Amino acid sequence: MDPTQADIATLRTEIATGRLTIPAVIEAHLDRIAVRDGAIGAFVHVAADSALKEAAAGAQGRLAGIPFGVKDVLDTANMPTEHGSALYSGHVPPFDAGSVARLRRAGAIVLGKTATAEFAGTAAPATCHPMDSGRTPGGSSSGSAAAVAAGMATFALGTQTGGSVLRPAAFCGVAGFKPTHGAWPVSGMLPAAHGFDAVGAIARSADDLAEIHAAMMHLPSPVAPDAPLSIGLCRTHLWDTVSDEAAAIVEAAATAFARAGIVVVERNLPPGFEDLTAHRRLVNAFERAGNMESWAVVIDGARPESQEVFARGQNVDGAAYSTSAAALDTARSRIGELFGGSDVLLTAVTPGVAPEGLASTGDPRLQELWSTLRCPAVTVPFGAGIAGLPIGVQLVARPWADVRLLDAARHLERLRG
Amino acid sequence: MDPTQADIATLRTEIATGRLTIPAVIEAHLDRIAVRDGAIGAFVHVAADSALKEAAAGAQGRLAGIPFGVKDVLDTANMPTEHGSALYSGHVPPFDAGSVARLRRAGAIVLGKTATAEFAGTAAPATCHPMDSGRTPGGSSSGSAAAVAAGMATFALGTQTGGSVLRPAAFCGVAGFKPTHGAWPVSGMLPAAHGFDAVGAIARSADDLAEIHAAMMHLPSPVAPDAPLSIGLCRTHLWDTVSDEAAAIVEAAATAFARAGIVVVERNLPPGFEDLTAHRRLVNAFERAGNMESWAVVIDGARPESQEVFARGQNVDGAAYSTSAAALDTARSRIGELFGGSDVLLTAVTPGVAPEGLASTGDPRLQELWSTLRCPAVTVPFGAGIAGLPIGVQLVARPWADVRLLDAARHLERLRG
Repeated sequence: MDPTQADIATLRTEIATGRLTIPAVIEAHLDRIAVRDGAIGAFVHVAADSALKEAAAGAQGRLAGIPFGVKDVLDTANMPTEHGSALYSGHVPPFDAGSVARLRRAGAIVLGKTATAEFAGTAAPATCHPMDSGRTPGGSSSGSAAAVAAGMATFALGTQTGGSVLRPAAFCGVAGFKPTHGAWPVSGMLPAAHGFDAVGAIARSADDLAEIHAAMMHLPSPVAPDAPLSIGLCRTHLWDTVSDEAAAIVEAAATAFARAGIVVVERNLPPGFEDLTAHRRLVNAFERAGNMESWAVVIDGARPESQEVFARGQNVDGAAYSTSAAALDTARSRIGELFGGSDVLLTAVTPGVAPEGLASTGDPRLQELWSTLRCPAVTVPFGAGIAGLPIGVQLVARPWADVRLLDAARHLERLRG
Repeated sequence: MDPTQADIATLRTEIATGRLTIPAVIEAHLDRIAVRDGAIGAFVHVAADSALKEAAAGAQGRLAGIPFGVKDVLDTANMPTEHGSALYSGHVPPFDAGSVARLRRAGAIVLGKTATAEFAGTAAPATCHPMDSGRTPGGSSSGSAAAVAAGMATFALGTQTGGSVLRPAAFCGVAGFKPTHGAWPVSGMLPAAHGFDAVGAIARSADDLAEIHAAMMHLPSPVAPDAPLSIGLCRTHLWDTVSDEAAAIVEAAATAFARAGIVVVERNLPPGFEDLTAHRRLVNAFERAGNMESWAVVIDGARPESQEVFARGQNVDGAAYSTSAAALDTARSRIGELFGGSDVLLTAVTPGVAPEGLASTGDPRLQELWSTLRCPAVTVPFGAGIAGLPIGVQLVARPWADVRLLDAARHLERLRG
């Protein structure tokens, strides 16, 4: 049994039965990082010493000994937190982010910090797709997705404001989860656009995501998943951005649900929801620029893409922002019209496979619609496209129905086999 | 003209016409702090050197030379940020909070850091009411309210999760504003319960609050205020917590609006809204405990009240939290039922004058109802009670109608004379 390919439940069992030790789990991952990460660049800091020390001390808790990576926009007390930016070179905050600390109290062990686009924005890090060094792994949680996909961490924390967890997870062929806005602790997370920001996780499976969610939310450990009651197949107004191969994979997931006896119905976005993309763009620009004021006096030291985001947001006035923010609230209050009798929506997560080039982390629109509505969203791999690269599907639930959503994703994993 | 008693517009005019210099404004406030703050304890750090240096350099912008205090849960790069806690003793963050930086870019000058309850919670600082050293100034933005009331700063930033801006402002007889949740930048603000947290301001008048809001939101400078269309007198289910003298002052404000020809109607909370207090308590406990995970390993070094908040929140599970959070979202989506045809609600801000003793900062329930709904809320003084201590009233608007709300408060100031 290779610990770098195992899921959380397997590692827990192997450790409990003594077939694996916690130090052996950590060492296997550090070895894997040593072998593979030179070519991938998923980690910006490897905390080998503290990880081995914690392993030797004997971790306790529901995630005892599970190694994870932390996106470098989340604070860590004993290692640098640089937000992907030269402006934070060498910065070490005094405490862990709440999300990191909660997982550590549950026994999980931080392997290191994973590469992020600067300030979780658009200036991509130098991280490659694990299967093709000429392609982006997605972003802004680039390193978190690449680390999990390459077997260098059992799971990793990320953050999502637009599509920064689900997009890289889908491109890299792993599972990714963005909880309901606000559900997971936010302390020690760098704010980007706070109306949308959420901490999330990338893991080997939806089963693992459910374990992480349970630890983060003080819930009982997951049991066998409930099947969804009714899947709403929602193509959205962005369906023409989806490639034929990605569309076919969404249809295949719908078919898998239907063959399992689950009702699948078509759900269209209610009238007006097609305006969400434009309202979101304006709110995102204004909020990011406000939070970036912290760096106004040194913004020349940030990357050009970040400087442009700052400049663009300065030109939005509060009246336009407030109008768009109110429109988003109205859409959120109409979420029942969208879901109808369906508890889970099925839709595309990306237009297709990871695109070529490292300058852009890909198109966020298919993911960001759901961040805008503050819904929980999850992706699981469900097929392959060009060059055998993975393609996922996206499931979405109403706000606060996170457990139901994860159950649906776990159910789909079982249907996929 | 005493600069420590002047509002922003007056200071701007005096500076523009050369009757006052920016260094003279700053020196007058530093002198006032030297004379008065030993007995009050509003400031935990006075940044005399940097304030005088910035003043001498000649500030530019719409708030040029206006001195302000910053609640010590907001980051400042060139002075300590201790969150009212021994856990952050001597901590200096690398950058200013977004809200602080935006005001500084508009020319305002930071005088220092103001006292806060630990982590903006319930462990009160050693700050006295400026009019009676045996009474609380309110909290958790205790120092910000006391500083403005005692003429030690033209205005001060605070934060509000329950009632931490409006309550101390009302107790101290000054104006206080909590914007719509999310409207002002949040970077560099310590998260407490992020579903409710907001940066806000305390100032000498609603006119000044409108100036600060305009600078923070990139809006044109305020002109003469529009009168509200219809005032909804909303006593809420908490009316029996309001003293006779505070109730009479709310009625007097309603009468003042009515005499000015503005429609005043009674508005009752819609059915179910009385449950918001209980749902809020649970959400607040869970979110605070999650964010406090950062300090779990050193929580013994925090104050007992904070340790209790952490322990209480650990006992809330994610299922109960999610249910209550969803109930709050439902109430927010029903805000139209509450406001009806009224654009502004008038209600009590506190049960009465500042209570005796420094251990508690007072009852948050009348303020926190509106934080829970994410509405903007403002208080202006409107009378006096026991021992001549001030009593305010509270005005509330729909989310994102901040300018309309501030106009209503400015209108009420003019009716008060």
